[in-house]
Amino acid sequence: MSRLLFFLSDFGLADPYVGIVKGVIKEVCPEVEILDLAHDLPPQDLRRGAYALYESVPYLPEGSVILAVVDPGVGSDRRALAVQGRRHLYVAPDNGLLSLAWRLDPPQKAYLIRGQPASATFHGRDLFAPAAARLACGAPLESIGTQISLNLVELPVRLSEGPEGEILTFDRFGNAISTLRGPVPAEAVELQGRLLPLRTTYAQVARGEALAYWGSGGLLEIAVREGNAREALHLSEGIPLRLLGGPARARL
Amino acid sequence: MSRLLFFLSDFGLADPYVGIVKGVIKEVCPEVEILDLAHDLPPQDLRRGAYALYESVPYLPEGSVILAVVDPGVGSDRRALAVQGRRHLYVAPDNGLLSLAWRLDPPQKAYLIRGQPASATFHGRDLFAPAAARLACGAPLESIGTQISLNLVELPVRLSEGPEGEILTFDRFGNAISTLRGPVPAEAVELQGRLLPLRTTYAQVARGEALAYWGSGGLLEIAVREGNAREALHLSEGIPLRLLGGPARARL
Amino acid sequence: MSRLLFFLSDFGLADPYVGIVKGVIKEVCPEVEILDLAHDLPPQDLRRGAYALYESVPYLPEGSVILAVVDPGVGSDRRALAVQGRRHLYVAPDNGLLSLAWRLDPPQKAYLIRGQPASATFHGRDLFAPAAARLACGAPLESIGTQISLNLVELPVRLSEGPEGEILTFDRFGNAISTLRGPVPAEAVELQGRLLPLRTTYAQVARGEALAYWGSGGLLEIAVREGNAREALHLSEGIPLRLLGGPARARL
Repeated sequence: MSRLLFFLSDFGLADPYVGIVKGVIKEVCPEVEILDLAHDLPPQDLRRGAYALYESVPYLPEGSVILAVVDPGVGSDRRALAVQGRRHLYVAPDNGLLSLAWRLDPPQKAYLIRGQPASATFHGRDLFAPAAARLACGAPLESIGTQISLNLVELPVRLSEGPEGEILTFDRFGNAISTLRGPVPAEAVELQGRLLPLRTTYAQVARGEALAYWGSGGLLEIAVREGNAREALHLSEGIPLRLLGGPARARL
Repeated sequence: MSRLLFFLSDFGLADPYVGIVKGVIKEVCPEVEILDLAHDLPPQDLRRGAYALYESVPYLPEGSVILAVVDPGVGSDRRALAVQGRRHLYVAPDNGLLSLAWRLDPPQKAYLIRGQPASATFHGRDLFAPAAARLACGAPLESIGTQISLNLVELPVRLSEGPEGEILTFDRFGNAISTLRGPVPAEAVELQGRLLPLRTTYAQVARGEALAYWGSGGLLEIAVREGNAREALHLSEGIPLRLLGGPARARL
Repeated sequence: MSRLLFFLSDFGLADPYVGIVKGVIKEVCPEVEILDLAHDLPPQDLRRGAYALYESVPYLPEGSVILAVVDPGVGSDRRALAVQGRRHLYVAPDNGLLSLAWRLDPPQKAYLIRGQPASATFHGRDLFAPAAARLACGAPLESIGTQISLNLVELPVRLSEGPEGEILTFDRFGNAISTLRGPVPAEAVELQGRLLPLRTTYAQVARGEALAYWGSGGLLEIAVREGNAREALHLSEGIPLRLLGGPARARL
């Protein structure tokens, strides 16, 4: 019985790369079951990929192998990692892609994947897929590579319970996902000089109005009812925001 | 041996929601095989989702579990359903999404899914996925929730053999799919004052010309050869159309 | 134990066709494992589909069944094929879609699939899926149809080691993929009067500069660093290109 293998990438389904990676995995570990996490992530968008993993990790069966390939540095000297978390095993480039998931599933041991990729541009196929497949089939981490320290690359963002945060990324509807974790008591969010009400459903504001709410993964999100918050509010990654109100209510 | 689980949603593959739902399903029922029906449906488009299920239902192995999540009313008081059809088991919101499929696979029993969703916005993860997984693993409907009457929400459209119908939805190429079921004898279709010839293949009209034909699922479709009918003919959902000719031929 | 079944199409995931084909396959061969190769190929783009299969074939486990449906001639008299290669089994229309893959996996025997499709427009469901499923479950080719000669339709393109080639297709980033196979020694590529340097990584040219490199599947590609080569260089399929330099270096 092999582990489940969840696969996330920015390869899309208009090119054969997702299928090729699956072919390599099944060649190495025929009995593994491969499940797609997401493949239409915006190309090379590490924040979006890291967010997708953060949202997913609590809901995947314990002991899964997570193969995550968003790899703008392919062909450079960025490291290729296999990481043992408390809950799952991870195979990914050492570029911060896993760093938000690690807030929920802290790394216990890290290994540098051994191997000579046949190509300079497709390490998903040449390096990550075989390693993930071997782990799914039960190979010990030691057989994949060399243990290294837990001094791994992190995205330059910090998840916190506030009150200060920033816009982390966007979903495909243009809703903004922030670095603020909750739910924590608050009444409003300050963003670019605006005050947005903190609500539980869209229906609590009028059409075209902006609101903040705690998303299904626990991060504060900003949306415009029946609209695209990114465009309507001219938002971009890194813009600061601030929780207002809360128990003391003095700050408001 | 579990049932097959077919999964349809409007979640897309640019966000992790499809993968999260699969993780929850595998956690609850590790042996289930999950197959994707469609995930890039236009967001919150119940007509499109209902049409996709109508087309699919006859071709899925009997006894499948169909998990269908297009859920604009998430967080409101719309009901969460598990429904026994003649052929398949369905898990979906009670918003009409299943109502066209039921023309082919009539509901026998309906249950209100029991449970307290952890989020206001992601019942696919919190409510529908666990119920579908338990059914796939063989749990009886009674263990999922409370039986209710078969007085379920239906889309406000009526499939018929004509002669009057309307545009139900569109496919990604801009072909219009109508509510007319066939094939029934006819020679042409009247649409917004135009007469479109009823043909069996595109090649029977010139490039850029419009035609009607019986689609692979048995519904009358309107297309423009090598073009986009929705745009070229300024079509939208609900526009009426009418079959002309047929055995009597007097109407033409 | 059934064979693996890899499925490539231009059906997209916004319509239910991929799911319907999978339903038919599972009905015919319940134990088969279906893996997606690609489904968002540009509609009816045989060059893109043929390229995707060429890239994939070496990486799929030997003995796989490959179901490939890009079928602009559906409903015409184009033939429906089951083909035994050296390495894999193929089920596809006889329209050139498989012809590049055959450079790597030459056909040994070909069969005309027997059957009366229920529809004029969805042979993927009616003809190809049942045949592929039966082959995956171990049925002999003779049971699927009638043996025919190996005189099969080929795309009108020729892969070669140069020096003359042409643009075969594009990927979703606008990188051009050519018919030149390598790596072979060369220093530059001549394209529409320009000289593009042959490099191993994007980082070896400045942002916005064009370069050529050997892609992960061994074909020469043309890209613009952090740009879209198709648009920036006004490229289209069939444009000739030429390798320059190489061992003799006299040609430069």
